[in-house]
Amino acid sequence: MTATRSVLATQATDFPRWFQDVIAKAELADNGPVRGTMVIRPYGYGIWERLQAALDERIKAAGAANAYFPLLIPESYLRREAEHVEGFSPELAVVTHAGGKQLEEPAVVRPTSETVIGEYMAKWIQSYRDLPLLLNQWANAVRWELRPRLFLRTTEFLWQEGHTAHATAEDARAFATRILHDVYRDVMVNVLAIPVLPGRKTRRERFAGAINTMTLEAMTGDGKALQMGTSHELGQNFARAFDIGFLSSDGQRELAWTTSWGSTTRLVGGMIMVHGDDAGLRVPPVVAPTQVVVLAVRDETVSAARRIADELTASGLRVEVDDRTDQPFGRRAVNWELKGVPVRIELGPRDLDGNVATVARRLRGSGKETVSLPDLTSTMVAAMQADQAQLLADATARQIARTTAVSTVDEALEVATTGWASLPYDVVGEDGEDRLATAGITVRCLQRPDGTLPTEDDERGLTAFVARSY
Amino acid sequence: MTATRSVLATQATDFPRWFQDVIAKAELADNGPVRGTMVIRPYGYGIWERLQAALDERIKAAGAANAYFPLLIPESYLRREAEHVEGFSPELAVVTHAGGKQLEEPAVVRPTSETVIGEYMAKWIQSYRDLPLLLNQWANAVRWELRPRLFLRTTEFLWQEGHTAHATAEDARAFATRILHDVYRDVMVNVLAIPVLPGRKTRRERFAGAINTMTLEAMTGDGKALQMGTSHELGQNFARAFDIGFLSSDGQRELAWTTSWGSTTRLVGGMIMVHGDDAGLRVPPVVAPTQVVVLAVRDETVSAARRIADELTASGLRVEVDDRTDQPFGRRAVNWELKGVPVRIELGPRDLDGNVATVARRLRGSGKETVSLPDLTSTMVAAMQADQAQLLADATARQIARTTAVSTVDEALEVATTGWASLPYDVVGEDGEDRLATAGITVRCLQRPDGTLPTEDDERGLTAFVARSY
Repeated sequence: MTATRSVLATQATDFPRWFQDVIAKAELADNGPVRGTMVIRPYGYGIWERLQAALDERIKAAGAANAYFPLLIPESYLRREAEHVEGFSPELAVVTHAGGKQLEEPAVVRPTSETVIGEYMAKWIQSYRDLPLLLNQWANAVRWELRPRLFLRTTEFLWQEGHTAHATAEDARAFATRILHDVYRDVMVNVLAIPVLPGRKTRRERFAGAINTMTLEAMTGDGKALQMGTSHELGQNFARAFDIGFLSSDGQRELAWTTSWGSTTRLVGGMIMVHGDDAGLRVPPVVAPTQVVVLAVRDETVSAARRIADELTASGLRVEVDDRTDQPFGRRAVNWELKGVPVRIELGPRDLDGNVATVARRLRGSGKETVSLPDLTSTMVAAMQADQAQLLADATARQIARTTAVSTVDEALEVATTGWASLPYDVVGEDGEDRLATAGITVRCLQRPDGTLPTEDDERGLTAFVARSY
Repeated sequence: MTATRSVLATQATDFPRWFQDVIAKAELADNGPVRGTMVIRPYGYGIWERLQAALDERIKAAGAANAYFPLLIPESYLRREAEHVEGFSPELAVVTHAGGKQLEEPAVVRPTSETVIGEYMAKWIQSYRDLPLLLNQWANAVRWELRPRLFLRTTEFLWQEGHTAHATAEDARAFATRILHDVYRDVMVNVLAIPVLPGRKTRRERFAGAINTMTLEAMTGDGKALQMGTSHELGQNFARAFDIGFLSSDGQRELAWTTSWGSTTRLVGGMIMVHGDDAGLRVPPVVAPTQVVVLAVRDETVSAARRIADELTASGLRVEVDDRTDQPFGRRAVNWELKGVPVRIELGPRDLDGNVATVARRLRGSGKETVSLPDLTSTMVAAMQADQAQLLADATARQIARTTAVSTVDEALEVATTGWASLPYDVVGEDGEDRLATAGITVRCLQRPDGTLPTEDDERGLTAFVARSY
C-alpha cells in the first residue's frame, strides 16, 4: 500500500485534495481549458453512461418521454419568472456575437430549461386531454461557478432535466415525489450503492422559482453532505409566466401545475466521495466499466489470461486483460486499486501450474485468495453481488454512526464539524439557519418524524438534518 | 387520402415545403426561439435515440470509447490550424460575458471539437504504446447557419464526433475508412434502410483542415443528394498545430496522424426525405418508436385493443393503443399514416365478432387485409421484416433509376435538375466544379471505376457523382 499512499493525499489529512488526486490518477477527468469546465475521460464517462442508462430506464418507466430543447435561450425568457431570474442571473454565460455579427437579443447558454420548455408547453397543451405532459431531456447546462470542483460543481455539467405539466397540484406533487423515490432513490441505492436521506429543502434552500424542493442527501467519507438529486414542485409559477393553460373537462381555462427534476454528473462525484478510500476508488460493480481485470504476471501467462477473460466475459462480466508485462507488477496492481476495479485476478506461472488463480478483491484490502480455475466464474459472479451489497452496507453504517440527534443549534454546530446532526426544525427556524450559515453549515433537508416527506405547507414538528456540504 | 393531402404540400409540387409540413404535422420537431435552432419533440427524439444506440454499439465495436469534452473552447484554440479557422470563423457563436463579467478571452461554443480534443491528446499521448487513441463523444454543436432547415442544417445540432490518433498515415486511413463502412454505412443501410453512395470529396468540398474527406451520399425523394455522414483523414495538420507527438518504438519523437468523423440529427432528416410520401412519413420498423398502433374503432373494442397490444408487446414489438374513440375515425387513421407507423390494426365490433383484425400497412397504400387474431403476432413480426426490406429496395431502385451516366459537364447540368449524374472527373476538374456551382450543383463524391474509395492522392480516372443537394 506504500506506493498508493505516495500518489494520493490521505482522506484524513485532506479529503478535498484526496478527491482531486484520485480523479486525476484514476483518469476519470481533467480540468477543461475554460475555467471550471471538465473533460470527462473514458473511464469516468463509462461510469456516467451506466448511470445514464439506469436513470433513463426508470424515467421511461415513470411515463416520461425524452425530447430535446435548444441550448441557447433568448435572454428575455429568463426574466419572465421573478425568482428564477434572481437565482440564475449571476451564473449565466451569454452569447452576444454569432455568425460574425452582434446579436439583436443576446442568448444565454441554458443554466436549466424551465423557461424554454415552458414556452413550448404553452404551445402544445390545449386541453386536459394533453395532460399530464411528461418530458425529459439529456443535455449539458452551464452555470458560471465561483468555486468549481470536478464532478461536483463544474461550469458545464451533463444531466437529465425532467419537466412535467399536470392538471392539479396533487398530480404534480405525486409525480415529483415518484421521480424522487422510484427513479433517483432507486438508482442511488441499488445502482450506486449509496444510501440517501430524502427530505424537503427549507425555504432558503429551494430551487429558484419552486414552491417545494425535495432532495436526496448522501454522506461523504468525511461526514459531509452531498445533494444527489432534486425534484421540484413549481406550483403555477412557470405556468403563469409562460401562460401554460388548458381547458378543463368542464370547459374552464385553468393554469397547469408544473414540476422539474434533475440529476447530474455530480453523481459520479458522489460515488467517489462515498465509496473511495486511501487506496483510491471503489467502484460499485453495477456501474463499473471494468468489473474484473485479469493481470498476466509474466509473458507466458498472457494467453491463459486472455482465455480466462473470454470465459468471464461470456458469463456477462465486464473484463479487461492487463498484458503490460514489461511494466513493474506492483505498479500495475496499485493502478487497478486506484481505479477501484472490484476484482483483480493475478495469473503467474505457478498459478497456472496449480490450475488456480490468485484473486485480490478491492474491498478486502491487501489479502488475496486462491481460487481453482473451474470455480473462477461462479466466484466472480458471487463477488460482484457481495461487493455491491457491502458497499451499500458500509456507507449505511457510516451514515448511521455519524448522524447524531441533538436538541440545540449549538450542539448541531458542534456535531456538524464531523458528521450530520438531526434536531427539531422548530428550534432552528430561519434565525437558526442564519447562525448555521455563518459556520458554513446548512439544513440539508427536513423530514416528518416518521421519516416521510413533508409537503411545502408542513412547517411545525419537522426534523432538520444539518451538515456541512460539498 | 383526401384528408392527408389537405395538410401536407405534395412532394411533386414543393418538396421542401412538404418536408417542413410533415415535420410539423407528424410532431417530429418545432423551430426553436433562437433563429435556426430546433426543438426535437418526443416522436422525433425517439427515432434519434434508436439511431444513437445503433451507432454507439458499432462505434464501440470498432474500438472507440466515449468521453466528453467541454462545450466552450477558448477562441485562440480555433486559430491554431489555418484552414480550420478559415472554415469555421463565419459560423461561430461566441460567449463574451459570463458570471456577470466580460471574459478575458472569449469562448466559442464548439462548432466541432478537433481543437480542444487535440489539446488533450497531446497531453495524454506519450509513446507509441498510447496509440491508437480512439475517442468518441455524443454532444451538441453550434454553427450559425444562414439558411437553416429543420434536421438538415440547424444552428445547434446533436451528433457524435469521433476523434482518433494513430502512429502512421496508413493506420489513420484504415480506421477512418472502417468507420465509414462498418459504422455509418451499416447503420444507414441496415437500420435506416437508406442506400448510400460512398466516395471521396473533391478538394473544394473537404472538411476544413482535412487532407481527405470520405462521405456517404443518399438520394432524396426529389432526386437530390444528402450528405449522411463523413469521415476525415486530418493528416498531421492538427497534430502539428497542437503538438500531438509520441516516442516511436525506436525512440524517435514523431507527430501523430489524426482522424475525425461525425453523424448528426441530419440522419432523421434523411429518413424523412428518402422514405416519406404524399401521405407523410414512412418510418423504417427498426427505428420506429411505434411499430404497430392498435386503433379501437369504438368504445366497446378498447379493452380488446389493449389485450392485443399487450400480446404484441410481449413478442418484442413496440406497440401503442389509440383509444380516442371520441375523435373521428378517419382523422385518427390519417394521423397514424402521417406519423409513418408501419402497421395500423383497426379493431371494430365486427372484427371482434369474426375473431379477426383489420390491418392497414403503411407501405401498401389504402388497401387493407383481414387477419385472424391467432395469426396476428406472427403476421406483425413478418410485416416488420418485409417493410424494412421494402423501404431499402424502393430507395435503391430509385437511386439506380435516377442516376444517369453522362460524358460532359453540359449533360451533367441537365441531368442534375432531376437526379444524379455520373461522369469522369477528368472531364470535370476544378473548372467544371466552378461551372456546376453556378447552377447550384456540386460534385457529391468521387469513386474509382470499381466503386471503391479513392485515397487523397488518386486524381485521375475517377468517377464523379454530380447533383443538387440539401
